[in-house]
Parts: sequence; structure tokens; C-alpha cells
Amino acid sequence: MSPQSGRTRGRRKKQADREQAGDNRVPYIQRKIGTFDILNEEGLCLIEENADKILRDIGMEFRDDPEILEIFKHAGADVKGELVRFEPGMCRQLIQASAPSVYTQHARNPANTVKIGQNNTVLSPVYGAPFVYDLDNGRRYATLEDFHNLVKLHQMLPSLHHSSGIVCEPVDVPVNKRHLDMLLGHILYSDRPFFGGLIGAERAEDSVAMVKILFGENFVTNNTVLYAVSNTNAPLVLDNAMSGSLKVYARNNQAVACTPWTLAGAMSPCTEAGTLAQLLAEAMAVCALTQLINPGTPCLMGSFATAISMQSGAPTFGNPEGGKMVLAAGQLARRLGVPFHTVGALTASKVPDAQAQQEATFGLTMALLAGANFINHACGWLEGGLCSGFEKSVIDADLCGKLIAFAEGIDLSENAQAMDAIFEVGPGEHFLSSQHTMANFQSAFYMSPIADNNSFEQWQAEGSLDLTMRANKRWKELLEAYEPPPIDAAIREELEEYVAKRKASMPDRNY
Amino acid sequence: MSPQSGRTRGRRKKQADREQAGDNRVPYIQRKIGTFDILNEEGLCLIEENADKILRDIGMEFRDDPEILEIFKHAGADVKGELVRFEPGMCRQLIQASAPSVYTQHARNPANTVKIGQNNTVLSPVYGAPFVYDLDNGRRYATLEDFHNLVKLHQMLPSLHHSSGIVCEPVDVPVNKRHLDMLLGHILYSDRPFFGGLIGAERAEDSVAMVKILFGENFVTNNTVLYAVSNTNAPLVLDNAMSGSLKVYARNNQAVACTPWTLAGAMSPCTEAGTLAQLLAEAMAVCALTQLINPGTPCLMGSFATAISMQSGAPTFGNPEGGKMVLAAGQLARRLGVPFHTVGALTASKVPDAQAQQEATFGLTMALLAGANFINHACGWLEGGLCSGFEKSVIDADLCGKLIAFAEGIDLSENAQAMDAIFEVGPGEHFLSSQHTMANFQSAFYMSPIADNNSFEQWQAEGSLDLTMRANKRWKELLEAYEPPPIDAAIREELEEYVAKRKASMPDRNY
Repeated sequence: MSPQSGRTRGRRKKQADREQAGDNRVPYIQRKIGTFDILNEEGLCLIEENADKILRDIGMEFRDDPEILEIFKHAGADVKGELVRFEPGMCRQLIQASAPSVYTQHARNPANTVKIGQNNTVLSPVYGAPFVYDLDNGRRYATLEDFHNLVKLHQMLPSLHHSSGIVCEPVDVPVNKRHLDMLLGHILYSDRPFFGGLIGAERAEDSVAMVKILFGENFVTNNTVLYAVSNTNAPLVLDNAMSGSLKVYARNNQAVACTPWTLAGAMSPCTEAGTLAQLLAEAMAVCALTQLINPGTPCLMGSFATAISMQSGAPTFGNPEGGKMVLAAGQLARRLGVPFHTVGALTASKVPDAQAQQEATFGLTMALLAGANFINHACGWLEGGLCSGFEKSVIDADLCGKLIAFAEGIDLSENAQAMDAIFEVGPGEHFLSSQHTMANFQSAFYMSPIADNNSFEQWQAEGSLDLTMRANKRWKELLEAYEPPPIDAAIREELEEYVAKRKASMPDRNY
Repeated sequence: MSPQSGRTRGRRKKQADREQAGDNRVPYIQRKIGTFDILNEEGLCLIEENADKILRDIGMEFRDDPEILEIFKHAGADVKGELVRFEPGMCRQLIQASAPSVYTQHARNPANTVKIGQNNTVLSPVYGAPFVYDLDNGRRYATLEDFHNLVKLHQMLPSLHHSSGIVCEPVDVPVNKRHLDMLLGHILYSDRPFFGGLIGAERAEDSVAMVKILFGENFVTNNTVLYAVSNTNAPLVLDNAMSGSLKVYARNNQAVACTPWTLAGAMSPCTEAGTLAQLLAEAMAVCALTQLINPGTPCLMGSFATAISMQSGAPTFGNPEGGKMVLAAGQLARRLGVPFHTVGALTASKVPDAQAQQEATFGLTMALLAGANFINHACGWLEGGLCSGFEKSVIDADLCGKLIAFAEGIDLSENAQAMDAIFEVGPGEHFLSSQHTMANFQSAFYMSPIADNNSFEQWQAEGSLDLTMRANKRWKELLEAYEPPPIDAAIREELEEYVAKRKASMPDRNY
């Protein structure tokens, strides 16, 4: 190797980081492995029957949204007050009559457009945290600058496929205006697909208006460019903050992941089978609603099911119960015939430590094995979702990279069988310099950008840094190498004008 | 709660820790979940055919052990020098004719006796490290005191099922005498099953002699009480250090896990399919040998397959390639009809940090999903196996506990369906105080002894300890609560005499 100045090395490294984030990246996972099915046919039928009983005999409440009650009444459901009851099979039939099993979410960079459904998996970063954490500054309320930095960081991580939505809450912006800055941030600083605002019709309308500026009105009318989650208030309630945005997205052919949010023991029974039946009932009722509003609009069956600590009532993550439930929920979604949305690298840990990775690794691996088509919180989540971590994003994204390689399955080509190599090398010799190894070594194995596989002595000589410290260096390198993806100046201007005008039209509000 | 003195609380806690380690523990996992099969029938046949070709056209070398060459020649294999070649199907037939698909390894406490094979999984701690690590003293050469402390710590961890063997190398004892102290340590400080010495006929003979004292000669003749691993020198070599002990164990009906040790890219091709074919070939040849020596003696197909870093040549762990290979190897072992041995919570990390848990969690989860019947290194392993960690053992054992709960599958009993609870609670209410929750909360969910699920504020008030720091407190508590399991005084005396006599009969040797 010829000597290089620090500056030249730095430039080359930045260039390499940018390239890694760019063209060579697979835009989403196309799984070549199967799913891990934890329930047999009998178990699945039992859960489905129980879900049907719940919908027939208890029903689901749709609060403060008379329009939805009319829609259900018109469709033949039994509506009493805000409670809606369904005959067994009714929701399933409504879903299967029109909901697509796979759909496309377009990105402004077509190379980043994703397919959601079937054997595809999209990995999307953390959503919804009011705090951020990094090693230098600890935990603090997030700002719009943190938000932009997280969007940029995620854009630089090649194992992510989506830009998510509220990667952290910019609490320095009034509550009622944040969604505008966040949408603009995703559009300007990432060229991957992203979320629309989830809470309330007004934010959903703003989301649709902004993507119409970005993609053109006609394109948005005919294509899905936004992703949204509609969370139930388990047990068996959907409130109008969620149904309001759901209606806007469904009417505009934008995707809604109908996702019961269940902490088993608090919001559902303290058993997996009970939680699954309730979860399926809620998801079916909400998915059916999307199809009643606009038959054929993309909807996903969602599952966010974990257990609480039975000592303290606190939510726990990466637990065995959550693993079992996500596997079963994936099976139930496939039988329903819609894509499956779930959650990934969750943890209750306050810092990106060993607990965080034990929980995140188990949870994300289970979500992949469940055949999830969209994995929310695939990186960055800390503290039960209250905090987004910079180091955590980088560490989880490495795990995402591993799972992408894992999902490739085992190559059985003649080259991969490597019989020539085994014959060439023979007993007791080594493969390091064999022809086959030389020909394949660059692409042979997943290479982690942050794991340390060196000797103890070398690791010590390099400062005895644990993974969190190395991840701290890494996210700074990535942000330094970041360059915003190009965007048409006129579109940018129009978006900025829209945001300015909308913000000027509202008083600041912090609720 | 009534106030307690610190001493009373401490006594109760120790008592609770001892009880947790005692009678209520399940002695091994009886999996109620399936396996995750990564290869289809066609893929499995391809690997099996390639393994047969390797055994027929290359063969395997058995070095410095003429007796083994005679055994193979007598059985009809093609022996030229030290190279042994097999007709396709020969090894498989030899194995399937007599090797048991499941067997019992007895512990001196019958409550800890394990079944190895079929749907059973035994979790066993770290094996073979010359160094130990704990937060207080860092990394250092291990001593016999460390060895005893690790045996005691593992005995106190309820999610482990085995005491392993060289949980660390007591380097303060001469190399040729260590096995005697280690065997005595397992016997005195644990009442779980354990390993015999692996390297050389002499250590195996000592192992058999000592268990004859412990269990009685007659019992040992008719039962399996020792576990041993026979590692090949991949590619395609077994040396006489391994074949020497293998012969002793096979002749005495003691179990041998025939385990190719393959770092793909160095000791096997840099592909999964190539590595699997070579691994299967080696494992079949060695398993067949055990059956030629003593038809019906327990043998396991073993797999220790991981990838090297293609930049540095260093081994890497918890990688996607290792995950894929262990899943496939489990399938191959089931088709062979023998129990499957593999490895668990491996990591290249030097410390019990986020890297360690990302790698360990992925690896151990994959081993369980592979249907492994015996998982070596299920806790405690650091630094690519060079180091045993006290905190790491406690952290990994928590993961073992999670996987034990996961392997229970989903309970579909009427109580677990919890329909009464869902009907009792109804829309928008909570389950915390429902009858069903009150009746089930104690056993509802896995409870981690070391995870922190509390609020940030409470975590901070308790000292902002990360998982490693909490694990440091935990292993000290467990060691403090430890009491040696009772053993017959005469047997203890006889064992100590045996060790003293054997040690006196040899000069100290450090190779």
C-alpha cells in the first residue's frame, strides 16, 4: 500500500461510505428462506374462531367518529352506539374480496421503491421517541436538528430500506406543526420511502398534499407513496385520532398498517393465545374498514404484542412471549392474505448495552422469521420507545445487514458447492489460498463495519473500545460523509412554501 | 410489606436463589416447537451426495493411530496409508444400524439426569478458555479457583442443564494434571452431568475411572455418565489425541459428539454448501468409527461451523453464515438419525458488551431453532473462545431462560385462550386486575433476573447501571448463596485419593 495523507484517506472513506449507501444496495429483502411456523393448523383455526367470537359477541368500539359507524352499518354490521359487532367471517370476507397481498410503495428515487407483501421484507428505523441518546450528550429531549441528523444517518445505512416517520419528536417545534417539518425533512434529506403523519385527519391531509407536490397529483392518485400505522387502543377500541387519518389514507390509496398495540397482561390477557385472538379481531375489524372505505387500498395486518413485567407492570421487550406471538401473528396474516407489519429491535434498556442487543437481536430475528413484510423500529429504539439512540441505530443496522444476508438462504450453485476446492485442498491443508477462496473471498461472507474480530492485544492497542464506543465513531463518520440526495429545486421550493404557509395559518399549539 | 433487617432480607434472597437453582428447575428442554428448516429435500440430498463423494474420492485421514486403520480395514473401507475411503452410504449404514437416536446421560443427582436426542435440548456452559474476565479484575489467565467459581456459578444458574468440562483452563495446575482437578471440581461442586477429558486416551481413562468411583463400576458399564467431544482437524483429519479418547469412551458406552471444527474460508470452503458437505463427511466418518468400536454406543453428529473475516482471517461469530449452517446441519443430523451437538452463545468480543450479546443471541437462537440436542458454550464464552466471562455467563444464562420459555411454544389450553378474560374486561378497559390475570400472573411470563424494565428515572436513581454492571452484582450474589450439593463422604474421600495418587504418579508437565 502506498502512503496516503490523512485527508486523502478520509476522502476515500467518505466516498466508500456514500457508495455503500447508494447504488449497490438491495432496495428491500426478497426472502429466500421460509417462515418459522409456531402454530399448527388446529391452533390457527382456534385463534381465528376465538377472534370471530370476540367480534360477534363483544365487538369493537369506534369512538367519536359517526361516519365510520355509518360505513359499518351500511355494510351490514350490527352497530349499537359506538360498538360494532360482526358476524363470523364478515371482516375476513371484506378483506379478502379486495385487499392486495402485495403492493408497491414508491420512493422519490425509483431505485429505493419497495414492494411490501409476499416474500419481501422492508426494514424501517425507529418511530415515535421524544428523547434521543448518544454517548457524548446522554439522554435529552430531541430537537429538529436531532431529527434531521437521524434521517441523514439512516439514509447512510445501507441495510435500511425506509426512512420511517417520527424518528424522534422534534420537541422544539410546536406539536401541531411538527409533522410539516418532519415530512419536509424526510423528503429533503432522504430519497427512500417514508411515513405519513399518523394522528388526526389534518396531518394526514398535509401528508397527502406534500406528496402530491413531490410526486405530482396524478401519480399519487394512482400509486402508493405513503405508509401509515393505525394503532388500536387495545382492547377493542379505535379512536378518532387514528380513524381520522385512516380515512384520509384509505381514500387516497395510501397504505395503512392496522396494528393493535398490545401489552399482554395490561391491554390483553396475560397469555399468548388470548392476546392473539384479540389482536386478530382488532386487526381484522380495522383492515375491513379500509376496504369498506376504498376497496383495493393497501392495508396490512399489524402486530405489536409484548408482555408486561408481572412484578412492576412495566412493558418488557425482546421476550419469549413476544417472539412466539409475532411468529403466530405472521401466520395469521398470511392466512388473511394481506402483508404483515410488525416491530423489530425493541428494548427496555436505557442505553445501547448488552441488554439492548440481547432484546433487539431476539426481537428482530423473530420478526424476520415471522415473515414480516414491514418491520418498524428495525433500528434505533431504546427505553421502551421513549428514546432514539444514535449508537443504537448503527448497532441495530449491523444486525439488519446480518439478517439480510441470512434471508438469502443457502446458495446451492456449483460454485457454492465448492467441490473443486475440497478436492484441490485435500486433508489437513487450508483453504485460505485456494483458487476457489481467491475467486470468492470478496463476497463470501457478511462483513460488519463495527464488530471487532481482532486479537485482544490489537483491540487493546486500538483503545479497548466496546461496540457502543465504536458505533459512536461510526455514526459521526457517516454523518460527515452524508450528502443530501439531489432534488428538483422548484419542487423543493414549492414544498417549503407549503410548509411555511401551513405553519403561518395555525397558532402554535403544544397538545 | 413488613420491614426486614438487611440480614434477614439477605438470607431470604440467598434462600430464593438456592431454590431457583434447585428442585423447581426443568432438568432439560423438551421442545414443543418445531425446527427451522433452511434446506429443502433437494438441497439436503445434494449435500449428502457431495459428502459421499468426498468420503469416496478424497477420504479422511486418521493420523498416528494404526488400530483405527485396522478397524476400518476390517469393516471394508479402502485404507491406504492413513487415508481411509468409504463407498457411498457405508458410513450412514454403519451409523443407522446401531447408533441410538436418543440416550440418557446420568447425573449424580438423578433430578439432573438429561435425555439427549429427539425433541430434547441440553444447555451447557462455556468450554476451553485459558483466560477469564470479570468487570473487577479484567482479563487474566484462569486459575483453579476461577474454575471452581465458574462451576459453582453455573450450578446456581437454573437455565443451565450441564456442568460442561473445561469451563476455564486452570493454568496454575500442570497441563498433564489439570483434568484430574477439573473432574473432581465438577463432581464436588455441581450435581449436574459433565464432560470427560477430551484429549488423549490417558485423560479419558482417568475420567472413566473417576465416574466408576462416583457411580459404581456396574452402573457405568451399563449407563452413560460422561459427555465428550471429538473434534476433527478440518479438513478431513482426525488425530490420535482425539481418536485416543474416542476409543476409550466408545468402548465404555460413554457419549462422543463427533464435531468437525470448521472456520469456513480457512478449514473448509468459503461457502455454506461446501462447508456443510465437508462437515457431514467428517462427522459421518467419525460417528461410524464409534459404532465400529462399540455398536450402540451413543454418538452425536456435531457441528461447529462459522466464517472467518475475509479481511483479516480472524474467526467471526454470531454471523449469518453460521446461522444458516447450523440450521442445515441440524436437518442433516436428523436424517442421519443421531442427536445433534452444536455451539451457542459465541462472540469475538473481548468484553460482555453489545457486540457480545448481538452475536451470542443470534447464535444461540439459531442453535435452538436448528433442533440442537446439546448446545455447548450456551453461556460464558468471550473472545472467540479464549476467555470465559463471569458476567457473560450470567447474561447468557438469562437468554437461555428466555429460550427455554420460547421452546414451550404457545399454550392453547382453555385457560390460555383467556376468552373469559376478554369478555370480562371488554372494550377500552384493562386486564391488570381481571380475575384471569390475578389467577395467572405469577407464571404468566418469563422473568429476567437482570434485565432493567424500569423508568429512566428509577434506573438513574439506582445508579445508571448497564446490564454488565448488574450482571457483576448478580454473579457475586449467586456465589455467595452457593452451597455445595451433598455427596457421600466415602466417595468423596476415594475420589480425592484417586486424584492425589494419580498426580503423585506423574511428573509435572506443561504440554
